Amino acid sequence: MLVWNGVVVMSLDFLFRPRSIAVIGASRTAGSVGSILFQNLLVSGFNGPVYPVHPTASHIGSVAAYPSVSAITGDVDLAVIVVPSRHVLQAARSCGEKGVKALIVISAGFGELQGEGKRREAELLTIVRHYGMRMVGPNCLGIINTDPNVALNATFAPTWPPRGQVAFSSQSGALGVAIIDKATELGIGISQFVSVGNKADITGNDLLEYWENASDTQVVLLYLESFGDSKRFSDISRRMSPNKPIVAVKSGRTAAGARAATSHTGSLAGAERAVEALVQHTGMIRVDTVEELFDTAMLLANQPLPGGARIGIVTNAGGPGILATDACVSQGLEVPTLSAATQSALASLLPPEASVTNPVDMIAVAGPDTIAACLRLVLQDPNIDAAIALYVPPGLADTERVAKNIVQVSDEFESKPVLSCFMGAHGVPEALRSLKLGHVPSYAFPEAGARALARVVRYARFREEVKSPIARPDRASSIDAPRAAAAFEATPAGEWLSPDAVAVVLKAYGIHQAPTMTAHTASQAAQYANQLGFPVVCKALAQNLVHKTDERGVMLGLRSTADVEAVVDDFSARFGSRLTGVSIQQMVHSDIEVLVGTTVDPEVGTMVVLGLGGILVELLNDVVVRLHPLTEWDVAEMPKNLRGAKLFSGYRGSPPGDMEALSDVLRRINQLVADQPLCGELDLNPIKVLPPGKGVVVVDARIRRHTGKSAPLDG
Amino acid sequence: MLVWNGVVVMSLDFLFRPRSIAVIGASRTAGSVGSILFQNLLVSGFNGPVYPVHPTASHIGSVAAYPSVSAITGDVDLAVIVVPSRHVLQAARSCGEKGVKALIVISAGFGELQGEGKRREAELLTIVRHYGMRMVGPNCLGIINTDPNVALNATFAPTWPPRGQVAFSSQSGALGVAIIDKATELGIGISQFVSVGNKADITGNDLLEYWENASDTQVVLLYLESFGDSKRFSDISRRMSPNKPIVAVKSGRTAAGARAATSHTGSLAGAERAVEALVQHTGMIRVDTVEELFDTAMLLANQPLPGGARIGIVTNAGGPGILATDACVSQGLEVPTLSAATQSALASLLPPEASVTNPVDMIAVAGPDTIAACLRLVLQDPNIDAAIALYVPPGLADTERVAKNIVQVSDEFESKPVLSCFMGAHGVPEALRSLKLGHVPSYAFPEAGARALARVVRYARFREEVKSPIARPDRASSIDAPRAAAAFEATPAGEWLSPDAVAVVLKAYGIHQAPTMTAHTASQAAQYANQLGFPVVCKALAQNLVHKTDERGVMLGLRSTADVEAVVDDFSARFGSRLTGVSIQQMVHSDIEVLVGTTVDPEVGTMVVLGLGGILVELLNDVVVRLHPLTEWDVAEMPKNLRGAKLFSGYRGSPPGDMEALSDVLRRINQLVADQPLCGELDLNPIKVLPPGKGVVVVDARIRRHTGKSAPLDG
Repeated sequence: MLVWNGVVVMSLDFLFRPRSIAVIGASRTAGSVGSILFQNLLVSGFNGPVYPVHPTASHIGSVAAYPSVSAITGDVDLAVIVVPSRHVLQAARSCGEKGVKALIVISAGFGELQGEGKRREAELLTIVRHYGMRMVGPNCLGIINTDPNVALNATFAPTWPPRGQVAFSSQSGALGVAIIDKATELGIGISQFVSVGNKADITGNDLLEYWENASDTQVVLLYLESFGDSKRFSDISRRMSPNKPIVAVKSGRTAAGARAATSHTGSLAGAERAVEALVQHTGMIRVDTVEELFDTAMLLANQPLPGGARIGIVTNAGGPGILATDACVSQGLEVPTLSAATQSALASLLPPEASVTNPVDMIAVAGPDTIAACLRLVLQDPNIDAAIALYVPPGLADTERVAKNIVQVSDEFESKPVLSCFMGAHGVPEALRSLKLGHVPSYAFPEAGARALARVVRYARFREEVKSPIARPDRASSIDAPRAAAAFEATPAGEWLSPDAVAVVLKAYGIHQAPTMTAHTASQAAQYANQLGFPVVCKALAQNLVHKTDERGVMLGLRSTADVEAVVDDFSARFGSRLTGVSIQQMVHSDIEVLVGTTVDPEVGTMVVLGLGGILVELLNDVVVRLHPLTEWDVAEMPKNLRGAKLFSGYRGSPPGDMEALSDVLRRINQLVADQPLCGELDLNPIKVLPPGKGVVVVDARIRRHTGKSAPLDG
Repeated sequence: MLVWNGVVVMSLDFLFRPRSIAVIGASRTAGSVGSILFQNLLVSGFNGPVYPVHPTASHIGSVAAYPSVSAITGDVDLAVIVVPSRHVLQAARSCGEKGVKALIVISAGFGELQGEGKRREAELLTIVRHYGMRMVGPNCLGIINTDPNVALNATFAPTWPPRGQVAFSSQSGALGVAIIDKATELGIGISQFVSVGNKADITGNDLLEYWENASDTQVVLLYLESFGDSKRFSDISRRMSPNKPIVAVKSGRTAAGARAATSHTGSLAGAERAVEALVQHTGMIRVDTVEELFDTAMLLANQPLPGGARIGIVTNAGGPGILATDACVSQGLEVPTLSAATQSALASLLPPEASVTNPVDMIAVAGPDTIAACLRLVLQDPNIDAAIALYVPPGLADTERVAKNIVQVSDEFESKPVLSCFMGAHGVPEALRSLKLGHVPSYAFPEAGARALARVVRYARFREEVKSPIARPDRASSIDAPRAAAAFEATPAGEWLSPDAVAVVLKAYGIHQAPTMTAHTASQAAQYANQLGFPVVCKALAQNLVHKTDERGVMLGLRSTADVEAVVDDFSARFGSRLTGVSIQQMVHSDIEVLVGTTVDPEVGTMVVLGLGGILVELLNDVVVRLHPLTEWDVAEMPKNLRGAKLFSGYRGSPPGDMEALSDVLRRINQLVADQPLCGELDLNPIKVLPPGKGVVVVDARIRRHTGKSAPLDG
């Protein structure tokens, strides 16, 4: 039992499994929302009384109506409110007085409008909280629960979807209707559907938590325009998705789309990158289009997860086989050659014109039994994790028997998914019905199936990755967190740490920085350069000088005291009173430069960035971003996911990099973020990666103390 | 009239518009190919006699049969051969003797098999040529011509597609069947369909030429596994596609797909790049999947081409509007804000909760007339080139009237395409029928429509680009082509030109190379360095030293004669007798390095490459490839299409580049390729791009004489 401000907060069970329902605004006017919704509740066969509430009518349909909620004699668990917005607050209050546990407010005219609407929504929420109710909406389409013991269709959508294990939450009511229709057409069984509307009380995150513990839901689909409280979303979904996959369309990906979705003005590239980090972290299956949402859901809801990415393709026609192969490979799947044993077994079943490598082209004459035998052999091959069966009916073949055989073979393999693609109209409707009944997902063309399979393979891998431990430095004992904390505390909120403070922090975390000294005169600089040893680098330290290279504030490869003095004089001349000092640093040479950084995203939390360094590559923006905390898996994968990763293994005569040392830096930064809540932004750029065994050296570093402001949260 | 080896080659009209047909192998066995095909010819209502040929039967169906082709009393224009492969040669010979003009050989057992099959196909072709016939196949599904004056279904496919202006050639018979079915479902009207089979005589290119001049065909769809004679494909399709768009799925894109398609062993990345250059050159609309083939064909066949990429979106539901906006922008389209006038006109029609920028969200209550008025206003906006109308039927709305209104508004705009997306089942089937009749393409979800629109926008732009003239140097008169030709001729075929010969070629074409001298001793090198002026670069000239940087054969920034002598000594020590000389070059500094090159691809011809230079960027493979000859449009676009294009306009303190000088190099190389057929490979890398007005300097260059071998062609 949850308690909020001293009031007991009802479980969502009163929403999804009410024992009785009042419809406030039930109407006799055909086609009105109040009429359709009331009829839908009756037609779905809700297992309990539905009380229409109408100020004057004696009955709605043939059901006796009540002038108010308080006039209802029995208990009311759930009230659906469909009256005009100006009457909603009074209706909600009377529900509270009556002891109603949950509300669905269909009515619009609230937070989606500015001014009065926003105020009205705030007041509505106060009423809901005051009485300890829970509320879906306002401004929503309603909810569906297909559980036959409940049979609740509290929406004005025309379709009642088939029962199944897929729950669906939509931030767009209209899209929700379309999606229920499509799911019904594809035979994707729904457990519950919720149109969340303005999310004033119940948010997508509340629903995720509910479905996490709901035994009738195994897959969750989301249509999102925003994540709400991203941190909470992140926590719930990372905990949940290894057990129950979450497939999401997140719209507003482009600047124009975001403009349409919200008044979002942040850097889209940055926001999109944060979303990607969140997706990576949570294992959520992000799809680009609504079609892909279905394609993926069909596979997840009907077939086991694959153990790997090696796909066998069995076809009776060459062209579709090639298309499927292309689609698999371009989605990151493998289409490996089959084992010699499988090939010779296939060869004994098939005519010589057939191809027995992979794709297995059985050619057009293959009958239902041959197809079954070939598919079985491919699935038995230890080099294969999943199979795609393609079939183009030649002439009058018995397509339905082919489908039934595929279903039967699929049933023999508990841990290898099978999906199918039947092309051409001849006899295919019967085949598709058999496939649907037999839980073998079928796609109109091979590419969509391959794409869905790739997403599911990626998800299956995440379930392994998520077991990886948090990355920690080898010798955590050598870390001096309090010393670093003191350096942060000595810096004003939102300001950059001084070079000396940066050096303290890095030293405290055992991160090696190139020996550096700060001079204030030309002769002092020359003297320090002598101490450090030539060649050296001189960097201007000046106010508002953030991109030092752009303003020629960095001079490399200075080989004499005379060179150093000349550079310092030049800095003085150009930066004048802005110049606060000159940093002299031993010059480190390496062909491999990377950057490691952290930023606090207001939506998703701290992100750790690894990228190739140097201005040319920064131009091409080759970076990988992960949410903190990094796991050992992240540490191993991040460098590999850079486009220029080849550089690390030695490229065109350059030596390879000390990747173990780079991993160690990632682990230490991971620890730093965990220990130092005041760390707002950190940027080690460049880091020179030396040859194996020689380590890495931070050449330039910036750290900023957190502004101290926290992000606004909306649930 | 075409003549081939002294024999008149028949026009394809005898294939597509025969006056009479013999079916050799017509059969009484229900479900056999010979039975289905014969019945299909009768059922389609072919406008002429169809003669079944069978060795023993007196009649097939109710049609009198002939024991041989020669026994037929009337003339026979077209013979369809469906007998087993061992009888095909004899059948073809008797057709020749009879005076048959065209053959369709359905039978398999030819070139798709090795050995005997290949030999049999060669013999079949010899017979066809000998008698001056034309042939589709062997190993094909047949052909369809929907022209009601012909009504020819010489296939064993079960579907007779609706008449229309879209021609379709498929290299996969099975896929062809599936595609005809799907096209029929989507209401895409077909003019002719050809399953090309093994393409022994009639190739995809022959069909393209036929359709180029066929008044009943306006759009051509291709399913390709190979281009056949790529040069011919390139010429025909570049000539044709500005008038009649060609949409193609080219399969075998990935290595595994290519393995499945052919025994192709070349570098896939290279082959794929050549295909991309070919696509760019011909304006062919390349799609990734069969779904996209349809999505694009629907739009091309039904709506005008857009004048630009600015899309207006009109929706009655927010979510789909956001999805459509995201999809448009991520496909490279714009969703601009509407003009103030349009916005205020919209605002006067819509409630205050509506959004009148773009997407225009009319909210759920908008009725058919409001939707029509809003769509009209958006299409009238001069900032808009095309519109997407999204509609999610709320409750019992009159969806069909909405569809009819959209069709009506679409008809008012002759040069602005309109496409639609009706989501949700309620009343949508009627709406879809109205849209289909009204030639407004409709997509199940917004993303597919946006993708199709993006392809069509790109194609419309190509129709402008293709008018761009061939790029020629400003002062072509200063080019000394004979002098360059002599340098090529003095080099053995397939060999690299000597440094001196390279210098001659570049000078002859007015391409500026950094002053360079070749020394053979350390002291000579020092002397030349003095002449050129310090700093200098020394490069080892040695046999088999192609990647000089990798083997430390290039030393930069030498500032004294002592440095130069030390480097030459080091080269001598390391390269020994391989060292043939040392090149001394003035050192040129610039932050912008590019490469310009040409290669002769055996499939598509000479390609011109522009890329960012320097090893880090080569690592990331940032290049743009175009087929020779470049147009002025290519010259202007190539630099912009590099991922690192920002570098050219000055990046982080570096000066911008002299882009006019770089364009001039592209024009000169374009001329060089045109003039010098012996140029096999050219690689100017790096070229230093100096600030505007300072020009560009080639720092290193390699040129190889063509091997003299030409590529094998298959039609």
